[in-house]
Amino acid sequence: MNILIEGGYVVDAEGMIKDGAVVIEGNRIVYVGDRDEVKRHFPRGYLKIDAKDKIILPGLINGHTHIAMTLLRGYADDLRLQEWLENWIWPYEAKMSPLDIELGALLGSVESLLSGVTTVCSMYHYHREHNEASAAIKVGQRIVMGVAMFYWDEEGSIKRVEDALKHWHGRDELVRVSVSPHAPYTVSPNLWVVAEETRKNWEEESGIPVTITSHIVEDWNEPDLVKERFNVEVPNRSIYMYLDDLGVVSNRLVAAHSIHMNEYDYEVVSKRGAHVIHNPVANLKLGMGVANVPKMLDKGINVGLGTDGPASNNTLDMFETMKINALLHKGVNRDPTLVSARESFKMATINNALALGYHDLGLLKEGYLADILIMDYKRPNTIPLYNVYSHLVYAVRPENIDTVIVNGEVVVEKGVIKGIDVGDLIKRVSHRAYEIAREVGG
Amino acid sequence: MNILIEGGYVVDAEGMIKDGAVVIEGNRIVYVGDRDEVKRHFPRGYLKIDAKDKIILPGLINGHTHIAMTLLRGYADDLRLQEWLENWIWPYEAKMSPLDIELGALLGSVESLLSGVTTVCSMYHYHREHNEASAAIKVGQRIVMGVAMFYWDEEGSIKRVEDALKHWHGRDELVRVSVSPHAPYTVSPNLWVVAEETRKNWEEESGIPVTITSHIVEDWNEPDLVKERFNVEVPNRSIYMYLDDLGVVSNRLVAAHSIHMNEYDYEVVSKRGAHVIHNPVANLKLGMGVANVPKMLDKGINVGLGTDGPASNNTLDMFETMKINALLHKGVNRDPTLVSARESFKMATINNALALGYHDLGLLKEGYLADILIMDYKRPNTIPLYNVYSHLVYAVRPENIDTVIVNGEVVVEKGVIKGIDVGDLIKRVSHRAYEIAREVGG
Repeated sequence: MNILIEGGYVVDAEGMIKDGAVVIEGNRIVYVGDRDEVKRHFPRGYLKIDAKDKIILPGLINGHTHIAMTLLRGYADDLRLQEWLENWIWPYEAKMSPLDIELGALLGSVESLLSGVTTVCSMYHYHREHNEASAAIKVGQRIVMGVAMFYWDEEGSIKRVEDALKHWHGRDELVRVSVSPHAPYTVSPNLWVVAEETRKNWEEESGIPVTITSHIVEDWNEPDLVKERFNVEVPNRSIYMYLDDLGVVSNRLVAAHSIHMNEYDYEVVSKRGAHVIHNPVANLKLGMGVANVPKMLDKGINVGLGTDGPASNNTLDMFETMKINALLHKGVNRDPTLVSARESFKMATINNALALGYHDLGLLKEGYLADILIMDYKRPNTIPLYNVYSHLVYAVRPENIDTVIVNGEVVVEKGVIKGIDVGDLIKRVSHRAYEIAREVGG
Repeated sequence: MNILIEGGYVVDAEGMIKDGAVVIEGNRIVYVGDRDEVKRHFPRGYLKIDAKDKIILPGLINGHTHIAMTLLRGYADDLRLQEWLENWIWPYEAKMSPLDIELGALLGSVESLLSGVTTVCSMYHYHREHNEASAAIKVGQRIVMGVAMFYWDEEGSIKRVEDALKHWHGRDELVRVSVSPHAPYTVSPNLWVVAEETRKNWEEESGIPVTITSHIVEDWNEPDLVKERFNVEVPNRSIYMYLDDLGVVSNRLVAAHSIHMNEYDYEVVSKRGAHVIHNPVANLKLGMGVANVPKMLDKGINVGLGTDGPASNNTLDMFETMKINALLHKGVNRDPTLVSARESFKMATINNALALGYHDLGLLKEGYLADILIMDYKRPNTIPLYNVYSHLVYAVRPENIDTVIVNGEVVVEKGVIKGIDVGDLIKRVSHRAYEIAREVGG
């Protein structure tokens, strides 16, 4: 569809136009500029969206989550990681069928589309028919679907990754697959090497970027666990050096967390151009500590943002994540000039896009993919408006969103998601979630 | 009005009833219990509110803010405190008339009522006709209006406090006045003594509690500033010891921030039963550091929660504040068991009520003031529901709120605030806010 959005403020991390306009043809942005100018060039035949008192911005990207885990939202909180995982999360997940995964993911896609997330990078258990990508397609959300790999099922892990790449990578304009060795302490050195080979081969074959998405240095004891489990000494206690020796650290590596990096780690990540996805809410909630984001940014590392899964957050709200990201580093470093509003917005848009291998996403620019939000700021929580970046990070809530466009399609209109019966979804999720909990004995 | 709310979950910090009900007569709760039981006792003649798939909870209390500062929301961010205050905030405030203060406060009351805040404790410049209380009354919000006192205008400060107490304290069921010596470094020892005397006298005379609300140990250098400005040595660098020597530290002292307390401070606050209001968002945003809330709670100190002013937050959203409070202390102390969801909810309800001198507010209990929220949890961001406290702190957004009742009156119905033209207010605020900014030269 061809769309002419007449604004309003047109804003992305690179700048702002007042009284601007954006023109979409098919799934691409073809023009961004002054409203009157745009009208002269594109006089008719376009669906016109009036965004006069609104803000037009790129869709947010959730750089790291486990979107199907909406089913476990609030199932267990305020517990230590190992108790949380072993006594609560894993027993529940063991009861989840492929259809449950798709159901949870569908709720997550609905929730996050409604809160302005047009692209999600998620990692979970994969099944060919019903998975996080099949859910995302149903509501028109862009997804990078990570297929989890573990040392206790190397053969199965490799099979599933190959299957996902074959059946889902680029199968739809909205879907890419990533290879997801879970973490250094749950993936053997050999499996890392296979993961990277698979990634490279499929990227070459498909001509579409394939990334490695993983959890790296979420906790400080990962070198000990690697030694214990795989009998490998991690050099200088630097997990990134260890992975670099395996040939895994490149600009196709997207590493969630990276809270407990040492100087060697910073050096490797910076040198190789790997990407870090910061998840402030989940890192705080699980008591994992605070990643040194200002230092990463100083070292020129590309840092994106994610919510992590809804069991450790407990939302998929990237506006909240942008705000907490901007607040946290100021507070713990006692410096209010760190991680400005604009920087945090950049992290949730263009930084995430680059991390995930998209060079045509995350900005409002000619030739870029048409993933766009239109936001109403004439609300009690967002007036007066002095500075658009400030509002987007410190004041906006998902409910300010009026319209969401993904890949050139309007998927949310006046705050209502299209093509899905949300009431029915809520009923199905509630029913099935409690059923699983009862099965587990919770 | 007499109201029968049929739930739903009925929840406060002390516990939860499933399929419960709450009955209101006049401005008080007269019954809380099982739904069927309640129906037998109160068969007819009540306005019935169906809250079957909803959560009924006490209204949230914002323990510390400067509500009129909505006019400055996003006016200046990401700056160091002194630059922020001296170059941006103060020059703007110097241009604000009494009508501007009322206008900003009205927006703040609307914004915060819509986000479930039924009582607000605010501190600002006072004028007899137009002030934060006159605004709160217009929309039916409960307010403790703090009248700011400064050493550079001692006489004026005392006059204004006396005037406010005479004209506003208890003038309306919704309004109390508090005496607000701004901070140790902006209030002389003599002015502290006068403030406390005034407080005591008016409490005795009116029979209604009068509190001292102030900012205490927001920064570490307050002992130095006191020495420099008032030529008084602060004993053991303990601001609370210094104030205790002046006779100010009692269970009527409500101290915002208290980030940089030393061991002497903890001892004095704990011994005297003074109250601390924690403002995690503003403390982070201004780079002031992280108050040691777990330690305060361990020492039995009553700790409440506030948003601080919308210029340093930039919202008045107590759900967000409850969440960030629950997250932050887990993260910086690397212990996910600290400040549970229920504890954080308690801080925003009953702890705040007790701090502000209300012994009949913050719980759903017979005889308590009828300040109540009804919340819809059948939304994409709040299903499934396993644990009500978890959702209230980690998942709910203001938009889940359906109904707000203050002092027995329904002031928000189906998410719409009554008795005020919000569209018109938004226009007036935008117009005037930009006008002031232009006058300042911003």
